[in-house]
Amino acid sequence: MTQPPQPFEITIGSVSRSLRTVPVGQVGYVPLVEFIGDSELTKAAARALLPLIPEGTQALLSVVTNALPLVHELSALSGLPYEVARKKRRSYMQRPLIQEVPGLTLGVSETLWLDSFHAERLRGKQVAIVQDVIATGAVASALARLAERAGGTVNGYLAAFKQGEPALPLRFLQALPKRV
Amino acid sequence: MTQPPQPFEITIGSVSRSLRTVPVGQVGYVPLVEFIGDSELTKAAARALLPLIPEGTQALLSVVTNALPLVHELSALSGLPYEVARKKRRSYMQRPLIQEVPGLTLGVSETLWLDSFHAERLRGKQVAIVQDVIATGAVASALARLAERAGGTVNGYLAAFKQGEPALPLRFLQALPKRV
Repeated sequence: MTQPPQPFEITIGSVSRSLRTVPVGQVGYVPLVEFIGDSELTKAAARALLPLIPEGTQALLSVVTNALPLVHELSALSGLPYEVARKKRRSYMQRPLIQEVPGLTLGVSETLWLDSFHAERLRGKQVAIVQDVIATGAVASALARLAERAGGTVNGYLAAFKQGEPALPLRFLQALPKRV
Repeated sequence: MTQPPQPFEITIGSVSRSLRTVPVGQVGYVPLVEFIGDSELTKAAARALLPLIPEGTQALLSVVTNALPLVHELSALSGLPYEVARKKRRSYMQRPLIQEVPGLTLGVSETLWLDSFHAERLRGKQVAIVQDVIATGAVASALARLAERAGGTVNGYLAAFKQGEPALPLRFLQALPKRV
């Protein structure tokens, strides 16, 4: 593997991008999806995801950082409120829900934090989990557990991109290869 | 200080919110601005900031996490591209610009990272620094240094809220008290 592979082409609605590929560990390259810094692609993805929101959804739940502009747009378009789990404890959090992500993502274990102030807003609601990319599904499953612990019910999983074969009933726009 | 103070009222355009106040260290309470999870407030702030973007601006530069929905919206409204510095190194970053934040923010020292791929996009451009809240101005100054090291020129500082008296020529929507 002496040189990186070609960019990976995607199209969402009328927006096309050449995703650069980045090395992951020593096993290969993956296409890098970046909604941060690309409001046009973000808006296109949110518009395309809008009709995939499961019927009856009352709130969206996502996680920092890459999915943040996307779930903001999806909230604005759908009129549904959204909450976002953090990956670090904030000093102002009170009685946060703390959820370990089982397994490893990109070689780093993670913990998700949801402040009680925000968890309260999921109580009794039908919650759709939203991410930019779902690969193993480990983070999505941890978000689902957070939603349930907050008193909500998970009614679906949405991602702009599916990468690999997550064991979840996922609605997505486009599949990405695990390795290129 | 046996009980927290009342919520702090803000209005941006036609959107009003009662900000909860949170303890900071052992010295008092501050109003907590949360654009994450509030697409309506985010859009109102972006609309109000739009006319404050300095003339000649060619790119926006912000930092994760709280300002992210706001700078995304401001980019979409203005048509200006935006870049976002990270607070952690990402495994895919190549030759990132690394900028220490002088001083302390909320008692935690910070380092900003801007991947060379994104830094390249600021080269030769007039850059406006955008944040949700500017308090001491330490993070804004570090962002300005990043923009300059990337080959850009800083032509202004924008924040939805000014908290305290930062020593920067700041354009903002509303002042917040440092302590309530």
